Parts: sequence; structure tokens; C-alpha cells
Amino acid sequence: MPDPAGQPPPVRASGAAPPRASRSAADRLLAVLGAFDHRNAALSLTEIARRAGLSLATAHRLTGALAAWGALERDAKGSYHIGLRLCELAALAPRGWALREVALPYLEDLYEATHENVQLAVRDGLDVVYIERISGRSAVGVRSRVGARWPVHATGVGLVLLAHSPAAVQEQACARPLTGFTPHTLTDPARLRRTLAEVRRAGCAVSDRQITEDALSVAAPVRGPRGDVVASVSLVVHAAGAQPPTLIPAVRLAGRGISRALGWQPGPASA
Amino acid sequence: MPDPAGQPPPVRASGAAPPRASRSAADRLLAVLGAFDHRNAALSLTEIARRAGLSLATAHRLTGALAAWGALERDAKGSYHIGLRLCELAALAPRGWALREVALPYLEDLYEATHENVQLAVRDGLDVVYIERISGRSAVGVRSRVGARWPVHATGVGLVLLAHSPAAVQEQACARPLTGFTPHTLTDPARLRRTLAEVRRAGCAVSDRQITEDALSVAAPVRGPRGDVVASVSLVVHAAGAQPPTLIPAVRLAGRGISRALGWQPGPASA
Repeated sequence: MPDPAGQPPPVRASGAAPPRASRSAADRLLAVLGAFDHRNAALSLTEIARRAGLSLATAHRLTGALAAWGALERDAKGSYHIGLRLCELAALAPRGWALREVALPYLEDLYEATHENVQLAVRDGLDVVYIERISGRSAVGVRSRVGARWPVHATGVGLVLLAHSPAAVQEQACARPLTGFTPHTLTDPARLRRTLAEVRRAGCAVSDRQITEDALSVAAPVRGPRGDVVASVSLVVHAAGAQPPTLIPAVRLAGRGISRALGWQPGPASA
Repeated sequence: MPDPAGQPPPVRASGAAPPRASRSAADRLLAVLGAFDHRNAALSLTEIARRAGLSLATAHRLTGALAAWGALERDAKGSYHIGLRLCELAALAPRGWALREVALPYLEDLYEATHENVQLAVRDGLDVVYIERISGRSAVGVRSRVGARWPVHATGVGLVLLAHSPAAVQEQACARPLTGFTPHTLTDPARLRRTLAEVRRAGCAVSDRQITEDALSVAAPVRGPRGDVVASVSLVVHAAGAQPPTLIPAVRLAGRGISRALGWQPGPASA
């Protein structure tokens, strides 16, 4: 079963690497950073050069510049890792840790009330990216990690984010091949469309064993000051014996709490 | 009062910008990223060019490359922000979110046991960088943020990290001017040295109103598999009425829990 977290994002239109001859200096530097991913978090210089498609000399020069700046760090064995300076920058991302900072007290409340997995995610193209996860010791195992990507159609947070996306994005999501992770994954475009309409109507999404056979998630929208859905919060619980109706109010409440903290004010007819 | 978070790190030897004429393409691209900080999390193209010391044309080309790659995002008003792609990379940093992921259950336990501010930090040169913070609603206000930097001498986590640093780092810390944030900040090198010895002896640090007049922190070491101190965990409480002896066991326990999760095994004589 492929781990989507290890794949490049499917709809970053300009993300395709240009032909090698025409690569700019900026592209080459970013290719060094792009050599790192979940499965390749520690890389030798040779591996960086190979994965970035660079000569060893160029890779050496660029990793040197990145390490001097703090974007990369080198361990005792000589392997390179992502450095603290990028963590400092990431903390400034409005859709990343800045949002997470506002949301955290509400996520903690949801965790204390349930002791289940609590997640916060945003949409990037046709993927969701998890920007926070609080896991209980006895909670069901989940395959998300902070910074991980999953396709929108297969997760509770993804269904919420997709249901409130522009029509063109929804069409794009339904038109592409829908990867199945279990027999329960929504891989039929017509069923996905019906589910999205239901998510909009209900104000929440239930994703039943779509990623793993033992987990069910309940997700609700997080709105920004203008009322648009900017993120989604979810609870992930053991599918066996799960009773979504008992979870939905808490998840929706957490979503509304974060929305208010972001400056959203419910209108008279708001769900 | 200057906010150290907005200043460049004091001991990143190779971090000083080279004379403009000799700046490489890599340096220019990194200067665009370096234009962003806590006080400048949203920047126009003009501001990026000015802060990075680049022509408008060069800044335009480089922000374009960074935005196409996902390192920057542009909002509806045309301002640039740090993008999700850097959050994904930051999640791979072994001293950042990868460490935080291992530590989080223990930080949550410490939070549930105390409902005070819980922090996790690592050392970068003579600064500490906070990589996690869990704040209670009624806990004392703290000036740290995830991704923020503070000088090692002025914080509980910093005293722990400095006390277990190589002798050369400790000397460097004592030799530089010690910024005072309150009348209680350790600004006397001799007193700082005595405090560091005491921290090593006690296995924890108490930082009393060093950053703000109303906060006291108790910090303990987090050890890696080889026994070296790789991070520090702390509780920050209201200074008025604080009783450090009642807090120290919980903080030390959290530190030991995270250390074990990282693969540390206490030796027979380990504190």
C-alpha cells in the first residue's frame, strides 16, 4: 500500500521539475531541500546529489550554503537533516503553525474531553496536510503525522475541506482516479459527490475505515473571519463500536471555537 | 525591551551575510526566506526586496520560484507568507517536530497533571529555540512561542541546556554581555557559573522571574540514546506563591519519560 505522504503533491501545477538543462540556481537549491521527505529524513551528500539530480560538486556547495544558514544540520555521522531554522520559519506559516497556535487550546479541550486522536488539517490542492495531531496512549493507531499529506477524498478532514472548496476543485477531485486504501474508501466519483453534498448539509463528515480498517473519523469545518472554511478538525476513534452521533457535537464545537478564535462570527442562519 | 526572537542568532558563525557583491545565488534565495520573521510574517514584494537587499526584479524572480515550489504562499492582497511546504519539511527536523512528536504524550501528561504552561526547547548556539508549548487557559502568560529564540542564560530550559553543554559553549555564554529582561535576570557571569554548577548537581533548573516579573519556570533535561542532553522540558507558573519543590518531581519525570522514549537508558549512578 503506497504511503501518499511520500509522493509529490498531485496538483501543484508549477511544481514539476523543469528539464535539467534549464534549471535555475533557485530550482537547484530547492531540489536539495526537496530531496528530504518522511522516508528520507537523513541523507548523505551522495544521496542528496542523486535525489536532487545534481553533480556531487554542486550538491556539496548547496548543502554547505544551506547548512551555514541553518536550513540543514549535519550529525556526527555526516548525514544531513532538516535544521532548526526551517522550524522557525515554519512557525510563521499562517496555514501551519500560526493557525495551530490559535487552535491548540481547543484541540486540547477536545482531547481532554475524549482522550481520542485529535487532528487539525488544511487543504493543499487535492491533498490535506496535517498541521497538528494530539494522540492518546490508548487511542486507535492513525497513519497521519504532522506534515503528512493524504488525498482529500479518503479522510474526514479532507471531505470537509473538499465539500467547502470551489466547484472547480471539487470537479478536479472527482475526475481524477480515486485511490482506495481499504474496501471502504470512497473511490466512486458519484458516491463522492453525494457524500460532499451530505457533508455540506450536515456540517460535518464521517469517514468510516477509509484509510485503515480499524479507524473512523468525524470532522468539522474551521472558518476564517470571512466565513470561508480554512481548516478542519477531527476526532479519530476505533471503528468498532464507534457511535458518530455522540462524537459529532464535540467536534463541531471545537471547530466553532477555533473559528471564533480566528475572528469568525456566525451569521443568523449559520450552521 | 528587545524581543530576541526578532534578532539573528548570535553565534551562527557562518550566518553573517557576505558582502553584497559576492553573494551567491543560494545566498540570495535564502535572504528572501530570511526576510520573514515573527514581526514580518506577511511581506509585500517591495518589503521582501528591501529586507533581503535585492533588486525588485531579482526578488520577483526568487519569490516566484519559492511560491511555485510551495515555500511561500501569496494571499488575496498579494502579500507573501511562509507556505505549507516548509511546514512539511520542518516536520522532518530531528531537533524540531520529530523530537516534538516523541515528546508530545509526555508533555500532555505534564499538562494534564498541572494545567500550567509546558514547554520543550533545544539549544542553538547560545539561544534556546522553543519547539513545543502547551498553554492552559488560566496559566501565567509566557513570552515564548513555538519557533521563538531566547538567550540561554535567561530561561529555565536554557540553564539546563547550557549546564550540559561543552565547556567552550559555557565559557562563550558567560563571556558575552548577559542581557537583562528583569532585575532578576542572571546578568552576572560569576553568578551564572555558580547557577550552572547547581543545575548539574540538582538535575533541574529554577528560573525565577528572569523574563517577566510574574513567571517562574522549572526545567529538567531530556537525554538522547547516548545520554547527552538534547532538549529540556519546563513548566512555567505564576511566580507569586510558586513552590518549586512541588513542581520539580513532575518536570523531572516528564524529562525522563521523553528521554526513555528517545532510547536513553539510565545508568546505575544516573540522576
